Amino acid sequence: MRSEPDILVIAASETESNLYYVTRFLAPDPFIFLRVKSETILLMSDLEVDRARATATVDRVLAYSEYEERLKRGRKAAVTAIDVVDVVLKERGVTRLQVPENFGFEHARQLQARGYALTTKCEPFFEERAIKTDVEVGYIEATQRAVEVAVQRAINLLGAATVRNGLIVHEGEPVTSERIKTLINVTLMEMGCVAQHTIIAGGVQACDPHHEGAGPLKAHEPIVMDVFPRHMTTRYFADMSRTVLKGTPSPEMKRLYDTVLAAQEQAIASVRDGADGRQIHAGVITYFEDAGFKTGRLQGRMQGFFHGTGHGVGLDIHEAPRISKSGSPLRAGHVVTVEPGLYYPEIGAARIEDMVVVTADGCRNLTCFPKVLVIE
Amino acid sequence: MRSEPDILVIAASETESNLYYVTRFLAPDPFIFLRVKSETILLMSDLEVDRARATATVDRVLAYSEYEERLKRGRKAAVTAIDVVDVVLKERGVTRLQVPENFGFEHARQLQARGYALTTKCEPFFEERAIKTDVEVGYIEATQRAVEVAVQRAINLLGAATVRNGLIVHEGEPVTSERIKTLINVTLMEMGCVAQHTIIAGGVQACDPHHEGAGPLKAHEPIVMDVFPRHMTTRYFADMSRTVLKGTPSPEMKRLYDTVLAAQEQAIASVRDGADGRQIHAGVITYFEDAGFKTGRLQGRMQGFFHGTGHGVGLDIHEAPRISKSGSPLRAGHVVTVEPGLYYPEIGAARIEDMVVVTADGCRNLTCFPKVLVIE
Repeated sequence: MRSEPDILVIAASETESNLYYVTRFLAPDPFIFLRVKSETILLMSDLEVDRARATATVDRVLAYSEYEERLKRGRKAAVTAIDVVDVVLKERGVTRLQVPENFGFEHARQLQARGYALTTKCEPFFEERAIKTDVEVGYIEATQRAVEVAVQRAINLLGAATVRNGLIVHEGEPVTSERIKTLINVTLMEMGCVAQHTIIAGGVQACDPHHEGAGPLKAHEPIVMDVFPRHMTTRYFADMSRTVLKGTPSPEMKRLYDTVLAAQEQAIASVRDGADGRQIHAGVITYFEDAGFKTGRLQGRMQGFFHGTGHGVGLDIHEAPRISKSGSPLRAGHVVTVEPGLYYPEIGAARIEDMVVVTADGCRNLTCFPKVLVIE
Repeated sequence: MRSEPDILVIAASETESNLYYVTRFLAPDPFIFLRVKSETILLMSDLEVDRARATATVDRVLAYSEYEERLKRGRKAAVTAIDVVDVVLKERGVTRLQVPENFGFEHARQLQARGYALTTKCEPFFEERAIKTDVEVGYIEATQRAVEVAVQRAINLLGAATVRNGLIVHEGEPVTSERIKTLINVTLMEMGCVAQHTIIAGGVQACDPHHEGAGPLKAHEPIVMDVFPRHMTTRYFADMSRTVLKGTPSPEMKRLYDTVLAAQEQAIASVRDGADGRQIHAGVITYFEDAGFKTGRLQGRMQGFFHGTGHGVGLDIHEAPRISKSGSPLRAGHVVTVEPGLYYPEIGAARIEDMVVVTADGCRNLTCFPKVLVIE
C-alpha cells in the first residue's frame, strides 16, 4: 500500500490553474502550496493571508511573514521562499516531495541542496482535474452559452450587411475583422466573460490557424471565427469555431467546407470512454487524405490539416487530454474540443469546432450552434 | 572580456512575458527559444512555424517537426522537446546554458542528464526589459488613457446617483460593485483593453486590498477602485487606483484619506534615478507611523499598511523593479506604480495609485486623473 506523495507547488494561481484548482484561491503573485500527510497548507503573504483564510479550500493557512521573522531573529539575513518552506517541511519531518514538471528550476535546486529528494509528475498534475464534475461541466456550458450569444450577434451583423465591390459593408462602412472582434469581445464582457485572441480571419489570413485577422473582410471568401473566452467568476473556458462566408463560395471551397464538417461529425461519433485520442486524430487525417486533401509543406508554407483535432477545456483553454498525435485515451467526464480544419491559400480555409463531454457510450455535445457556411 | 551567455527558454509567450519581449511572437502553447553565440533561434510546431517566420523578431525559425522526424528515423521512439533541443545545441557546440529561475525543473533535469551545465538568472531575465523605451512608455500611456475614460464613466455614474437609505441608487436600482465593474470592463474592451480582476470594493470589503468587491455599495463609505487592464494589441498594462465616497465621510476617514494622499505625494517626490525602492517604501511606513496609523495584526486581521508601495508595470502587471521591502534601486526609464494605502475596518480604507516613469532628476507622472475623495 502506497500513501499519497507529499507535494509542493510554488506559483501564481492566476496563471497556474493546478494551483487554482486545488485551492480555489486566486492571486496574481506566487505563493506556496503544500500537501503533507494529506493535509493541504498554504503559506501566504500579509497581503493575502486573511483572504486566503476566509476563502481558500485548504486545511491550513500559515503566515509567511511569521516564518520569515523567526528566521530573521536567527542568523538569516536574506530569507528566501525555500528557507521558509524548509522550516515548514522540517516541522513535519518531510524529506521527499513531488513537484509539477514545470516547477521552477531555481527553487528545485535550492531544495536539492538542502537534501530534499524531488520527483516530478507530468500533466494532469491532479489526475482528477481532467474529469469534470457536473458543476464544472455546468460552468463550461454557461461560458459556451455566452459564446453563442456573441457569435450570433456577429452573424446577425454579417447577415444585415451587403456586398459592394467585393467587400462586406454595413451601415456604410466596410466590415473589418477588428469590428467583429470588438462586437464579440464586448458582448462577452457584458456577460462576465473575458475573450482574448478571438479569431476573425478571412481569406488567406484564415489559412494560418492562429492568425487573429485584421482589416476589411471580403465577400465570397471564408471567415474563420474562433471564440474561446473565460468566465470571470467561475474561471472556466469554452471554445467554439465556425466558418462562414458572405456571398457565394467557389465549388472547391464548398467541397472543402463539407469535407471538414463530415470529418468533424465522424470524429465526434468516435468519441467515447476508452476511445484513443491518437486514433480519432488519425481518423481525421485519413478522412482528409481519402477525400484528396493533402497535408504538407507546399509552395513554402504548411497547407492541409496541420494542427491537433482537439484538446481538453476547463480552467485552461488547452489542457489534458489531447486528441492529436500526442493524444491519450478519453475518459467519461473529459471535456474536449473536436475541431478539424483545412487550410489552402488557393481555395480557402475552414475550421469547425464543438466542445463535447465524454460519456460511457459516446459524448454529449455542449455546443448548440448551427454549422452553416453561407450567410445570405 | 566575457561574451554573452547562451540562453534557453521553453514557455508559452502568452503567459511568459520575457519570451514575448524577446520574440514579439504570441502563442498559447510552449515553444523553444535559444540564443546561441548571439543568434536568436525559435523551434516552432507546424501550426506556428509560418506565422513565426513572418512576424517573430528573431534571427532564425526552425521547424520542430523536421528535427522530430530526423530523430524518429533514427532509433528514437518517443521524441521529447529536450531531444530536439539537444540536437540543435550539439550542432552548435553548446554545453553551457543560462535559463530563467522559473525554467521547468523536468526540462532542466533532462538537460543535466545529457551533460549540460545550467545556470539560472533572476528577474529581470532580460535586464533591458525593465528600462522602457519611448515606444513602450507610449504603449503604457495609451492603456492608461483608456483606464481614465473607464474610471471617469464610473465616477459619472456615482455622481448621477442619489443616496437612499444609506445605499447608492441610480436609475431606480442600488449600485453594486458588479455594475461598476461591468461598466469599466466593457468600456475598456470597447477600447481594445482587457481588464481582469478590476477592484470596486466598498467599506469593509475594501479593507482587504485584493477583495474585488461584491454587492450593493453603501453611501458614506469609501470605495476603492483599482483598474489595471492590458492592451490587446500592444500587450502593455496600465494600473491606477482611486478611492471615492458618495456622501459624507467621517472625520477619521477624511484624515485617513488625506494621510494616504500626502504619503503618496511624498513617495512620488522621492522617485528619481538612483533612488532606492526599499527606502521609498520605508519612508511611507514612517510617514504613516508618524501620523499615528499603526500596522500589524489587530483583532485577528492585518490592518494599516501591509503591501508594497509600488511595482514595475509593462508586459506584466507586476514586474521589476519593486518599491517595497524587497525593493531595489530605481533607474531612469523604469515605469513604476506608487500606491500606498491604509486599511482599518473600523475607519475605512484608501489606496491612491499613480504610474510614473523614472527620470534622471525625478519622474514624470503618466496618470492624469483627479484625486478627490467625495463625489457630490
